[in-house]
Amino acid sequence: MIIILKNNAKEKSIVKLEELLQAKHIKTNHIQGINQNIIGLIGDTSCIDMDNLYAQDCVESVKRVQEPYKNSNRKFHPDNTVISIGNTKIGDGSLQIIAGPCSVESEEQIITTAIACKQAGATMLRGGAFKPRTSPYSFQGLKDEGIKLLLKAKAETGLPIVTEIMSQSDIDLFTDVDVIQVGARNMQNFELLKSLGRCNKPILLKRGLANTLEELLMSAEYIMSEGNMNVILCERGIRTFETMTRNTFDVSAIPLLKEKSHLPICADPSHATGKTSLIESMSLAAIAAGTDALEIEVHNDPRSALSDGGQQLTPAMFSDIMEKIRGLCNYFGRKIG
Amino acid sequence: MIIILKNNAKEKSIVKLEELLQAKHIKTNHIQGINQNIIGLIGDTSCIDMDNLYAQDCVESVKRVQEPYKNSNRKFHPDNTVISIGNTKIGDGSLQIIAGPCSVESEEQIITTAIACKQAGATMLRGGAFKPRTSPYSFQGLKDEGIKLLLKAKAETGLPIVTEIMSQSDIDLFTDVDVIQVGARNMQNFELLKSLGRCNKPILLKRGLANTLEELLMSAEYIMSEGNMNVILCERGIRTFETMTRNTFDVSAIPLLKEKSHLPICADPSHATGKTSLIESMSLAAIAAGTDALEIEVHNDPRSALSDGGQQLTPAMFSDIMEKIRGLCNYFGRKIG
Amino acid sequence: MIIILKNNAKEKSIVKLEELLQAKHIKTNHIQGINQNIIGLIGDTSCIDMDNLYAQDCVESVKRVQEPYKNSNRKFHPDNTVISIGNTKIGDGSLQIIAGPCSVESEEQIITTAIACKQAGATMLRGGAFKPRTSPYSFQGLKDEGIKLLLKAKAETGLPIVTEIMSQSDIDLFTDVDVIQVGARNMQNFELLKSLGRCNKPILLKRGLANTLEELLMSAEYIMSEGNMNVILCERGIRTFETMTRNTFDVSAIPLLKEKSHLPICADPSHATGKTSLIESMSLAAIAAGTDALEIEVHNDPRSALSDGGQQLTPAMFSDIMEKIRGLCNYFGRKIG
Amino acid sequence: MIIILKNNAKEKSIVKLEELLQAKHIKTNHIQGINQNIIGLIGDTSCIDMDNLYAQDCVESVKRVQEPYKNSNRKFHPDNTVISIGNTKIGDGSLQIIAGPCSVESEEQIITTAIACKQAGATMLRGGAFKPRTSPYSFQGLKDEGIKLLLKAKAETGLPIVTEIMSQSDIDLFTDVDVIQVGARNMQNFELLKSLGRCNKPILLKRGLANTLEELLMSAEYIMSEGNMNVILCERGIRTFETMTRNTFDVSAIPLLKEKSHLPICADPSHATGKTSLIESMSLAAIAAGTDALEIEVHNDPRSALSDGGQQLTPAMFSDIMEKIRGLCNYFGRKIG
Repeated sequence: MIIILKNNAKEKSIVKLEELLQAKHIKTNHIQGINQNIIGLIGDTSCIDMDNLYAQDCVESVKRVQEPYKNSNRKFHPDNTVISIGNTKIGDGSLQIIAGPCSVESEEQIITTAIACKQAGATMLRGGAFKPRTSPYSFQGLKDEGIKLLLKAKAETGLPIVTEIMSQSDIDLFTDVDVIQVGARNMQNFELLKSLGRCNKPILLKRGLANTLEELLMSAEYIMSEGNMNVILCERGIRTFETMTRNTFDVSAIPLLKEKSHLPICADPSHATGKTSLIESMSLAAIAAGTDALEIEVHNDPRSALSDGGQQLTPAMFSDIMEKIRGLCNYFGRKIG
Repeated sequence: MIIILKNNAKEKSIVKLEELLQAKHIKTNHIQGINQNIIGLIGDTSCIDMDNLYAQDCVESVKRVQEPYKNSNRKFHPDNTVISIGNTKIGDGSLQIIAGPCSVESEEQIITTAIACKQAGATMLRGGAFKPRTSPYSFQGLKDEGIKLLLKAKAETGLPIVTEIMSQSDIDLFTDVDVIQVGARNMQNFELLKSLGRCNKPILLKRGLANTLEELLMSAEYIMSEGNMNVILCERGIRTFETMTRNTFDVSAIPLLKEKSHLPICADPSHATGKTSLIESMSLAAIAAGTDALEIEVHNDPRSALSDGGQQLTPAMFSDIMEKIRGLCNYFGRKIG
Repeated sequence: MIIILKNNAKEKSIVKLEELLQAKHIKTNHIQGINQNIIGLIGDTSCIDMDNLYAQDCVESVKRVQEPYKNSNRKFHPDNTVISIGNTKIGDGSLQIIAGPCSVESEEQIITTAIACKQAGATMLRGGAFKPRTSPYSFQGLKDEGIKLLLKAKAETGLPIVTEIMSQSDIDLFTDVDVIQVGARNMQNFELLKSLGRCNKPILLKRGLANTLEELLMSAEYIMSEGNMNVILCERGIRTFETMTRNTFDVSAIPLLKEKSHLPICADPSHATGKTSLIESMSLAAIAAGTDALEIEVHNDPRSALSDGGQQLTPAMFSDIMEKIRGLCNYFGRKIG
Repeated sequence: MIIILKNNAKEKSIVKLEELLQAKHIKTNHIQGINQNIIGLIGDTSCIDMDNLYAQDCVESVKRVQEPYKNSNRKFHPDNTVISIGNTKIGDGSLQIIAGPCSVESEEQIITTAIACKQAGATMLRGGAFKPRTSPYSFQGLKDEGIKLLLKAKAETGLPIVTEIMSQSDIDLFTDVDVIQVGARNMQNFELLKSLGRCNKPILLKRGLANTLEELLMSAEYIMSEGNMNVILCERGIRTFETMTRNTFDVSAIPLLKEKSHLPICADPSHATGKTSLIESMSLAAIAAGTDALEIEVHNDPRSALSDGGQQLTPAMFSDIMEKIRGLCNYFGRKIG
């Protein structure tokens, strides 16, 4: 960490700052510049709150040198984390395809869709039981009933299931779920993250609409610092000024997260774009960029879907896209599942 | 709601769409354009999910005409909502000043700060007991102990207290709190909002970092649709590309929210800018823009604060700013408290 | 175009609006809703300025139905535009690789780099002669001397050259240039666009940092409406809140622009990310997404470059990446050049 | 400037970096951290291009300590710059009101509007002769004819005139103009800025839609480094995800620019919000925040305006707002004009 001093900083104030740092076992190193004096901090600065340093009279600004995340940092764990889910593994070089409807709506809907997804080549089943909707007047999900239906679909197809949690008070309902998803709107619901850190299930953590990659890694840190190291990071689009797509799919997040972290990465082109016509090209782009998994919305009858109808593929469309995905995976020497 | 049809829309598909709409008691009106055909929807379209319409083969795009929020909409409730908090009222033309530290840190800290805030003219006391921090390694708040200390400070000064909730499982700890705050990161924690809708306390709802004003009003709708009509909307800065301020303070949100909604508005220049040097000017700007309340961070000793040191005012600075605020309120014929 | 009327709109004001529209040969169609009345406009609304309609007393809001771009719109020109540049073609299914340094710095530098680029498989040479730099104290380019050096490099290698124009008063210097580039900062320099519309050279039009795809198409329209139909659209990253990359590479812009327009598309992973470590993965992602061309910065000695050193590849790195690009192109059945 | 070295940086590469810096007369100071080594740079680093340092093998990242702007920096020029325009001054504590139509449309329109603006209390007249429009099919301005009409309106009212330039080739047409405006879309049209730096007229420089305050100051630097020190900085809203306003008015930019720079500041609530209903509150907010000038769009008949009809005030509305502005100025002890 580097502290840039104000030009008119008083000696007394600098001494006070030094004492405060020494109390935290941080050594300092002064650099006398021509227009600006700076102090370099030596030691473990992860215990220092940057914002607080700004309260010292003599401080003009503070710059971080070390990354604030530890458990998820590739610097300290060079090897890829590989997470086992049922018989499959994520992060081992394979590609996992998580497919299924936005919401679980009925037994017939989820089982029909699950069978179709499996036939087309999906390796896991997604489906929302608890639905975070902007409007309280929209369909809110079947809740515990939805989880039961997912488990029936799992029994039917053998596909591990991925479903979203919205509140830590529901955690007991997720006992038989294979992967618990944290949605974009809850990426910084820190109490929920801590609870999930104390369970031993893989967590699919989605990037918030306006969250930086560093913040995503810090949210992973919340889960990992409680003991659960099985975190999958998911890029699902960020909010920008562009209005033609629902969000802007930050494909570069995939290789960047791989550079900075050892955790496996998932990409969600359905939410990132909100447009079925873009799912194929964005799925292929994400694979070319190195993603470990894709999460794609598929519905047996999107026209009668209770949510997100416009971004869900029909089984036929999904099957066509899977063909393209399979071809590209072969080319890259990667297997699906 | 308006549906724009694809140029090559098939008659069969349009008929299907019509049937679907009729089943929801929506009448339709066709407009034959030169390049484009559209359908106008007549009836209560708040039950229709726009996204789902995109799943119909014949639909190119959908535009909303009616606002999706009802309870918070000024169209249906022209008069300002006035909320009573202790002996004061918010929304009645007065200005409320909510001041206090970012975090409650100790009995001495909160009581000293509360007394100083009251002396300077604050009308309510804020202080974080549960703290949403980006890093799990930062101070997380004193939790229930923090709320007890706030209540002591209230007993000492008579100031009503405002403090943030992070999880619906903590709701019983907030029984004696005067105003429950929902932080920006939880603005779309819908389960929390629903719980708060079932309690009868005023809720201070902060706008999320990347949330539109319409989404803020929809989150208010979550609380109101459960029966709690006492919602205060708070502008606290949005995330943009600018890096000189922590966030960008959207001052125009104040008059716009007043135009669209009857709910009282609060502005938080401390979080919006993250810079003590901007609090004075941004407080005055918010008053000039018509805010009903200001939330300002004050700490008895910011240099030793455990969080957000750089944006908290000293009591002396706050007292100076209050002088300016008082003057401007007098000018506008508004009273404080 | 759809006009939503205010609830309290006066008959007189609506009549006035109707007259104004009739004067522009627009027919109207009224839809009486339950909470809202709307007017549908029938006719060529491209001559109507949406903003101006807001000035009418009775208008609450205006929604566009038709796209405002014509010449670049795929609806009216279903076939891909194919542009000839020297012996190569862009937009015909092939992949063009435009490589070269950020700035032309010296004869030795540009010729060495051009030869290396050609050997690695580039099909065109880029190089900045006029450089738009944030700071007036940074290197501003060799200007006309730079163009001369580019022409020498073309003579040496046979590669067509692409270089940026910053002012319409320089247009005569570009007589022998093969493709004139308009930089992101000049995307809405409308006077420059009009001048380029009156020359008969291919124009590589870069998307502005904060411009929507619709605005990019409207800027193409400026060029095309003056007669020059040879426009290549270039995605080069947009400005968001993320700070780990210089910009956010909007890969979905590639298939979306292809959907909306018949013009060829180029992608620039160098500027989009600002990081050499991401060029390979983002180049492959752009190909998977269907780009017609890639623009990549290569410098014979990036460590001594006068601009953008951190995002320019060495010839060896470029050669490695070209191997991967060639492989992926083969897989997709596309040829380079 | 601070350079953070890679963990695996080779001695040889560090030596090379040192040599490169010494060649630019920069001294270095090494700080050995526990996890990271850094180099502090001592000397005038404004000649160093940060991006280029990234090309050195041993460099992980670079952080700037000194601000890159000099002429506009308050550190080196503590006193406010005061600019004379006709008989008035901007930056001396007074408030200037620049009012007038978006576009000059006819002699009658501009003269009627100018007289009305003057009567209401405006101190300068604005009006667009060259209009930057997103669409080539929209009204593009009366050009040189428009400037002539503005000069007639000046002769009639005595108000100094402010009008926008779009191309340096038009500069001779601006000889009698009092203040030349650079629009948001041209903020980084560096060739235009340099030309304006060589004329001796006050320049009103508008912040680009996606430009940081530092970039705005760097664009001022382009003008000032050529010799013209009379630059007025203008905040006119930035582009964000919010759609209820045309742009987001960054009111905090006013005090921040005053902190960082000695140049006078103008605020443009008309373009910042795009809504007449917000002009009054945002004008008052800007004054409370310390602006030196306001630019407000007024049209004698907005309903028949050729551009931006929806954000232009009628003379009556403007007159009402001026009453409020006058009151607030009195309160702050500032005079208008």
